[in-house]
Amino acid sequence: MKLAIEEAKKAWEMDEVPIGAIVVYKGEVIGRGHNLRENDQDPIAHAEMIAIQEAAKYLKSWRLEETTLYATLEPCVMCSGAIVMSRIPHVVYGATDPKGGCSGSLINLIEDTRFNHRATVERGILEQECGEMLRTFFREKRSLKKQIKQNNTDL
Amino acid sequence: MKLAIEEAKKAWEMDEVPIGAIVVYKGEVIGRGHNLRENDQDPIAHAEMIAIQEAAKYLKSWRLEETTLYATLEPCVMCSGAIVMSRIPHVVYGATDPKGGCSGSLINLIEDTRFNHRATVERGILEQECGEMLRTFFREKRSLKKQIKQNNTDL
Repeated sequence: MKLAIEEAKKAWEMDEVPIGAIVVYKGEVIGRGHNLRENDQDPIAHAEMIAIQEAAKYLKSWRLEETTLYATLEPCVMCSGAIVMSRIPHVVYGATDPKGGCSGSLINLIEDTRFNHRATVERGILEQECGEMLRTFFREKRSLKKQIKQNNTDL
Repeated sequence: MKLAIEEAKKAWEMDEVPIGAIVVYKGEVIGRGHNLRENDQDPIAHAEMIAIQEAAKYLKSWRLEETTLYATLEPCVMCSGAIVMSRIPHVVYGATDPKGGCSGSLINLIEDTRFNHRATVERGILEQECGEMLRTFFREKRSLKKQIKQNNTDL
């Protein structure tokens, strides 16, 4: 999870919502990703999606069996879907996302027995650190917005 | 939908499950995709995902507002999630997928009011043609498998 946090920090440095993910296979990191949605203007460029694609390239297979995905935030509806579609058997995440998380919060897509494949999930790993990054990011964003508004009023 | 079917046929020619998708913006096709999962060994290379990424590139925005996605098959869990995440407001699909579809069959992710964004859906457009492609594809696959088995027994 520390490596996923490192990925999230890369997103932060690029002024992206700090979310990171890695895919591990037999003890080796075979996929890394950090959120690039704004920089790339790509709705699919979430940390998990990038890490999954990199891992598939490494394994030369779309079936990511025997892998574990670590994400700093609970995967969204698309990323949870990608976990199901790539047959990742284990998911570990840090902070929960009560508003958009689909790996247990809003819905639990990755443990849904109606799909052909489902994952086991470990939640709340380094939750404090993962969540604090996001809270600080959004706090800074709000403060900046307020400052800009104040400056405009002063003009 | 005819253009989405054309895309599906491209997948078929590559021995992929024949699924195609397009994204339309103000009467213009701005994204096209056909299933490439096996050829690329990429779990994310579904027709809809490829069309969505191409459309975002065209619009230089991850927000695909004012667009319509046409898909020959009901979107799966990942693609339905991507529709939500890219804010596509209209979805039209051909054949329903009772086993894996997440735009109304197994779950209805794209009309779920708990998400910030949802789409209106039109179902069953050119359903017969879209479904027949899939049925023929799988029939041929099964027949080929049977033939190989028979040949092995004859040896």
